[in-house]
Amino acid sequence: MNGAKPKPAAKPLLRALGGERLERPPWWLMRQAGRYLPEYRALRAQARDFVDFCLNPVLAAEATLQPVRRFGMDAAILFADILLVPQALGQKLGFGDEGPLLDPVTDSRDVAALRADGIAVRLEPVCETIRRCRATLPAETTLIGFAGAPWTVATYMVEGSGSRDFLRVKSWAYRDPAGFQALIDLLTEATIAYLAMQISAGAEAVQLFDSWAGVLPEEAFARWVIAPTRRITAALAERFPGVPVIGFPRGAGLLYERYAAESGVSAVSLDTAVPIGFARDRLQTRLPVQGNLDPVLLVTGGEALERAATELKMALGAGPFIVNLGHGVLPQTPPENVAALARLLVEPL
Amino acid sequence: MNGAKPKPAAKPLLRALGGERLERPPWWLMRQAGRYLPEYRALRAQARDFVDFCLNPVLAAEATLQPVRRFGMDAAILFADILLVPQALGQKLGFGDEGPLLDPVTDSRDVAALRADGIAVRLEPVCETIRRCRATLPAETTLIGFAGAPWTVATYMVEGSGSRDFLRVKSWAYRDPAGFQALIDLLTEATIAYLAMQISAGAEAVQLFDSWAGVLPEEAFARWVIAPTRRITAALAERFPGVPVIGFPRGAGLLYERYAAESGVSAVSLDTAVPIGFARDRLQTRLPVQGNLDPVLLVTGGEALERAATELKMALGAGPFIVNLGHGVLPQTPPENVAALARLLVEPL
Repeated sequence: MNGAKPKPAAKPLLRALGGERLERPPWWLMRQAGRYLPEYRALRAQARDFVDFCLNPVLAAEATLQPVRRFGMDAAILFADILLVPQALGQKLGFGDEGPLLDPVTDSRDVAALRADGIAVRLEPVCETIRRCRATLPAETTLIGFAGAPWTVATYMVEGSGSRDFLRVKSWAYRDPAGFQALIDLLTEATIAYLAMQISAGAEAVQLFDSWAGVLPEEAFARWVIAPTRRITAALAERFPGVPVIGFPRGAGLLYERYAAESGVSAVSLDTAVPIGFARDRLQTRLPVQGNLDPVLLVTGGEALERAATELKMALGAGPFIVNLGHGVLPQTPPENVAALARLLVEPL
Repeated sequence: MNGAKPKPAAKPLLRALGGERLERPPWWLMRQAGRYLPEYRALRAQARDFVDFCLNPVLAAEATLQPVRRFGMDAAILFADILLVPQALGQKLGFGDEGPLLDPVTDSRDVAALRADGIAVRLEPVCETIRRCRATLPAETTLIGFAGAPWTVATYMVEGSGSRDFLRVKSWAYRDPAGFQALIDLLTEATIAYLAMQISAGAEAVQLFDSWAGVLPEEAFARWVIAPTRRITAALAERFPGVPVIGFPRGAGLLYERYAAESGVSAVSLDTAVPIGFARDRLQTRLPVQGNLDPVLLVTGGEALERAATELKMALGAGPFIVNLGHGVLPQTPPENVAALARLLVEPL
């Protein structure tokens, strides 16, 4: 021991993202704020529509804080939606019973009509949400900001809704890669600006959700998933050195390793299908990993959940690791199962 | 040269499935019979509903033959549906605008009510379709039979329709693996019986479609995808040695290699996301591979299709290889793009 005062311990999630192996791996859950919580449903009823809800800092901050208050996760994730960016660019957005609905962007003229200069003003309420959360969160809890990755956001912008076959967006990308590149470039710049705003407002780490990364062949994956992600991570690293970017290329399968090696992300979030042994041997040797319990297990609960969570902790806890799901919490999840998982996760390895 | 008469050359597709590298890789397309063809739509209009259509040997044989007549693929694939098996087991099946609808099987009692002894009688029309096709197909064209793999068929039986999150079926498998095993066992036996009927009637190879293999974590994948497939391949190998079984574990990603090594399939069909280099280095060294053009490219056509098909032929044509798509032909596909692909594929490497 020397006489220097020890630095105050960083927050557990930030330590894990910095490459530390913790006695107790930190945890949070994708979509941890949401419909499975009765207090969320009551809150949601106070806003007219979903976009208003996301852009109301009082309500969005409360939604962000609810799960942390109840379960004590190591991180809160900003309550918002990946489609706030297309809306801020000028695309009309609504939410129906079947999910999001947008007036599709189908060609270069539609892209030219979008305006990146709306981001700062239109998404300012998100920054206010972040400031409110930071003022309230416990000292040990990390606040994570997020955005959709350009490819995934583009799928919704071009398809106009969720899709099964991604016919319109892939077809455009195959037929007219230069034209489609303009949309991806616009989204890349908008995402950098948006995440920079979030970090400036107090987000301590950010996650890039590339939910539809898995539908692309390798060459297209390299161009539309990896390259824009690399531009985003490089721009953020320059402006905010040390702020971690977690990448989640859901469904990337055999391309997970290439993504981890080339995208510049600080940590990689694993979907349910990524084998734990592969994650340990091929990914965790390179960067911290996060994941990947099946959200269905959190609905099922009981022994199956307990066994899977314990195995996961044992297998990945020897390296830098964040416990999470492989996809978002399902609305059918009984909150008591999340509480049971929380109890299990606070036991040291 | 000795005096022995040369054996007649086997059909190209069977030669590739037997491990031969052909100067011109054989080709066919998943869902090559279907709505993208005007002659199919006219034929379909002759049957009241889709199940009747599949079980009408005159119509189903004609649907099977149509694409081969037009484009000269190296194989015809039986026109049928993977959900004929649950129907033959006694589950109510219909087709709505959104896809299949079944009265869900939700517990062991529902499984006990299903009857495997209906397979032989209720699916006999499929055998008649096969006999009709064999009588008509050109001598060099292979007839492929098929079935859904137990896991994938179970997803529809338990969910009652297509699904996004597979909540019911996974939840059952996690909560009560022994009970769910009874459903998988029943389907495994039914699939063996059904494919044996198809082979006896004249199918020269069969394909197992495991369209939802990709939604399972590794341990569940091993139990519900690999193990039943291995039972099916072993049973068929015993009764019909030399009849190839092509496995298609769509979305298996990082588990493709384990599937290829352990399931006992003779060849593996690759989805769109499987990198060609991985297929060449890690799969084709072990068994013949089939795939994996993006079906969207076949809608797009033009240079993008031509370039992708040429690259694929160059990369995988050096080993046993069958050109196919990574998923089924989309209804929006212009038939002239299939014709263009056919022209490109008849050019030798």
